[in-house]
Amino acid sequence: MTQQTINLTRGVPPVTVFPIDDLIQCNEAALRQDPYVLLQYGRSPGYAPLREWLGEQHRVGADQILIGNSSLEILAFVTQTQLKPGTRAFVESPSYDRAITLIRRAGAEVVGIPMQEDGLDLEILQDELKKGVPALIYLIADFQNPMGVTTSLEKRKKLAALAEEYGFWIIEDAPYRELRYWGNPVPTLRSLSPTRVLQMSSFSKVLSPGLRLGYVIGPADMIATLARWAVDSYIGPVLPTQGMVYEYCRRGLLSANIEQLKKLYSPRLQTTLSTLEKHLPQASWSKPEGGFFVGVTLPEGSDMESLRARAGEAGLKLSDGRGFFPDPANGNRFLRIPFSSLTPQEIKEAITRLAQLL
Amino acid sequence: MTQQTINLTRGVPPVTVFPIDDLIQCNEAALRQDPYVLLQYGRSPGYAPLREWLGEQHRVGADQILIGNSSLEILAFVTQTQLKPGTRAFVESPSYDRAITLIRRAGAEVVGIPMQEDGLDLEILQDELKKGVPALIYLIADFQNPMGVTTSLEKRKKLAALAEEYGFWIIEDAPYRELRYWGNPVPTLRSLSPTRVLQMSSFSKVLSPGLRLGYVIGPADMIATLARWAVDSYIGPVLPTQGMVYEYCRRGLLSANIEQLKKLYSPRLQTTLSTLEKHLPQASWSKPEGGFFVGVTLPEGSDMESLRARAGEAGLKLSDGRGFFPDPANGNRFLRIPFSSLTPQEIKEAITRLAQLL
Repeated sequence: MTQQTINLTRGVPPVTVFPIDDLIQCNEAALRQDPYVLLQYGRSPGYAPLREWLGEQHRVGADQILIGNSSLEILAFVTQTQLKPGTRAFVESPSYDRAITLIRRAGAEVVGIPMQEDGLDLEILQDELKKGVPALIYLIADFQNPMGVTTSLEKRKKLAALAEEYGFWIIEDAPYRELRYWGNPVPTLRSLSPTRVLQMSSFSKVLSPGLRLGYVIGPADMIATLARWAVDSYIGPVLPTQGMVYEYCRRGLLSANIEQLKKLYSPRLQTTLSTLEKHLPQASWSKPEGGFFVGVTLPEGSDMESLRARAGEAGLKLSDGRGFFPDPANGNRFLRIPFSSLTPQEIKEAITRLAQLL
Repeated sequence: MTQQTINLTRGVPPVTVFPIDDLIQCNEAALRQDPYVLLQYGRSPGYAPLREWLGEQHRVGADQILIGNSSLEILAFVTQTQLKPGTRAFVESPSYDRAITLIRRAGAEVVGIPMQEDGLDLEILQDELKKGVPALIYLIADFQNPMGVTTSLEKRKKLAALAEEYGFWIIEDAPYRELRYWGNPVPTLRSLSPTRVLQMSSFSKVLSPGLRLGYVIGPADMIATLARWAVDSYIGPVLPTQGMVYEYCRRGLLSANIEQLKKLYSPRLQTTLSTLEKHLPQASWSKPEGGFFVGVTLPEGSDMESLRARAGEAGLKLSDGRGFFPDPANGNRFLRIPFSSLTPQEIKEAITRLAQLL
């Protein structure tokens, strides 16, 4: 009587969403139109037509766009150029674990600022600012990984004002922003402080993660600094895939794809929230309006170590919530539910099994 | 009466060599065969079928192969994991300028070991070893950039023995190795010391640089160390292009392409050497048997600064030889001639113009 294990560890799109035929056609068109650029050496900041297309979308000049092999690696370049041993860097607590790793790798002191339902706890942030101004703060303002929380407009305005007053960078990582299933978009932090915000995003959640195609939008001089660093790191990002994606965007296929993804993910989020309501009333959780994740705080007395072991036996694979916290002890009751890659049926089954364990 | 400027600065393939149709077909075949892997997240060390193919070519297990977005960036990962401020690193003098930049970026002390016609000056190398053992030595043993020199078997054996005796890594960068136009191949350093050599190469010179597809071969535990570092840097290298190249290799197209490239480049090297003989007898130069470059030492009294200015007026764009030397002053008379992207006619014309300036 073995039941199929349900995997709640991976924040990824289901493989069925990839538009294979369109990508094949776009690759062919791109390589026929521009082979001498796409197959030759090409330097950071990336393929000019795609930079221009992205600039138009975000209403900035192409000189404000840098493309890289994943937004994660662009963050690596930001940390390598902006941080040094001893520098302070603020992150949301919890945050994206790999971002914390990169900031630590640069030798910086990672300061976790606790998250609330509408974003960072700004009182604690201001206390920390008095202790020492960071070089940057890294945050995911829309449908945060791992909590699913969206930072309120009020807090965004305050953060933008603080960044300008104290002179630190806000790294606004926005890979989920286009995946809003209901409710209204909140203005980007970059729109509130174009001189102090670097907005990063990628095609991983709206098209395909295998492309590793990320980009950052920011002041032209900062983009130029990152581009020089990137040229010395790898000369330029992989070109044929940039050509393929440019063609895909130019044909207007991206917005249609995003609409399809929303139709797929929206009921998954709804099911997650309604099943939590039904089966886990003793826990608390975020109420996301988009993205890939719902962050759950388990009832008091829960313990990640024993829960994961028992979950494994019950056919449930769970992420260790502690990995998302700069101070792991704070994550002992935190569970990330990535609903994007599971069917509503699997979500119901997973949360039901979880409830039985608690 | 303007004459066309001839560019002697870029060590690149001419764009006409890229097999566009084959690459389009291979991309389609790969995305049809394995879309769920090629478009989904995939971790370093890279696409398994391509790693296996490369392993077979080099007679090692796939666990000894790591693929990255350019061999340059793999070198970055090597420097980030193996060097720290104060560590010594030896390089050929002259060497690939971007490699020197990456080693310096890691905070290491770069020690340039002068090149001779058969490779490094081993007497000086051994003197430097006594002053302090380096963490690694970076070299290009076949058709070196920028000199064109190939390290002799005797020196390779001695280098391998020294690496084992003193316990340093040899980073054997071998992007030009397959492009031998005459003469016999010399065994790789890796074959002489599999435990102490990391051999790097890429598809940039044998297929297309826009792919940014590089790889490294080494001991499995070192490959695992680099893979962990790479996962935290970008999760994994760009996948669709790895699928395309795997299919290209699987079909046997790579070796045919290399044969074609040799037919194209061989007369270009011959013309470079014979024209130097005819027009620049007062200079000295390497006698490469493959690769992209001939390194020329200009007659005494030559000066890079004034030469480049006068060359510009004479319709000749020259690299500043000083950029290839850890100590730039040593490159004041050094000129790299990249013959790969020029026709024999252009090569003749370029060297004739150069001779008139000297």
